Amino acid sequence: MKTFKATRISIIAEKLNQNGITRILEQAGATGFSFFEGGGKGEHSNHPMHRPSIVGDFAIIKIEAIVTDRDVADKIAEAVTAAYFEAHSGVIYLHEVEVLRPEKF
Amino acid sequence: MKTFKATRISIIAEKLNQNGITRILEQAGATGFSFFEGGGKGEHSNHPMHRPSIVGDFAIIKIEAIVTDRDVADKIAEAVTAAYFEAHSGVIYLHEVEVLRPEKF
Amino acid sequence: MKTFKATRISIIAEKLNQNGITRILEQAGATGFSFFEGGGKGEHSNHPMHRPSIVGDFAIIKIEAIVTDRDVADKIAEAVTAAYFEAHSGVIYLHEVEVLRPEKF
Repeated sequence: MKTFKATRISIIAEKLNQNGITRILEQAGATGFSFFEGGGKGEHSNHPMHRPSIVGDFAIIKIEAIVTDRDVADKIAEAVTAAYFEAHSGVIYLHEVEVLRPEKF
Repeated sequence: MKTFKATRISIIAEKLNQNGITRILEQAGATGFSFFEGGGKGEHSNHPMHRPSIVGDFAIIKIEAIVTDRDVADKIAEAVTAAYFEAHSGVIYLHEVEVLRPEKF
Repeated sequence: MKTFKATRISIIAEKLNQNGITRILEQAGATGFSFFEGGGKGEHSNHPMHRPSIVGDFAIIKIEAIVTDRDVADKIAEAVTAAYFEAHSGVIYLHEVEVLRPEKF
């Protein structure tokens, strides 16, 4: 089976930031995304002088997209981090996956 | 810690195709799977002459399975793509993971 | 864009074990986690003499965490497997991801 390399972008964020984040995905060139509601526990403090502390449960959204162009993935990761993850909880992570039909992304 | 390589299969599909897709997973030899409901935005057109266009939100299901035999993963990917993703929205992607107990898969 | 390697831990478990598993995550040093409810079909028998058999649907929880220290990931994987996956259904798998801000984990 012939597969093609692509980058999967996963974003865990506070639910209130869902629309803003998906707008960045679309503007950066992602042709689609999916999202899943869940819960989480994490750290809120980003202050470099403070060790992150685990805080209470909160409603989260996981947003996922796959792009074949790594530059698009980087652009999304940087834009979402700058716009949302300085002041709000959340993480973004990337990893390589194989897809069958690269023309879909 | 000793780990073993396995392939994780992730399928994002329209919810109406859930049962058909999981039937393919079982027939191909997956010993289990999990699924999560969510939403998504993506492209519907697969016509090679048309650039995919983003369409409205729709209900999706994410189906995941892990197999230790890469041939089983390939078989699933090809069968699901042929049966559902020519006419319906959806993507399938594969990536390597490490598991602890290969006899479970 | 500068990224850093981290390990993503994914746990698929019976919902009734959620709190016990997340307690292990926190004790082992994960600074956060997220969880998603779903369904699944899998095997229950771990007996080495019996081939796992697919059993009926059950409510599952997927718990995810990212750690920058691989030793922490291994510790979690071993502890969760020993505590829950001998007697209950469930799997844990690990894979490498890239993150932007390693100080968050």
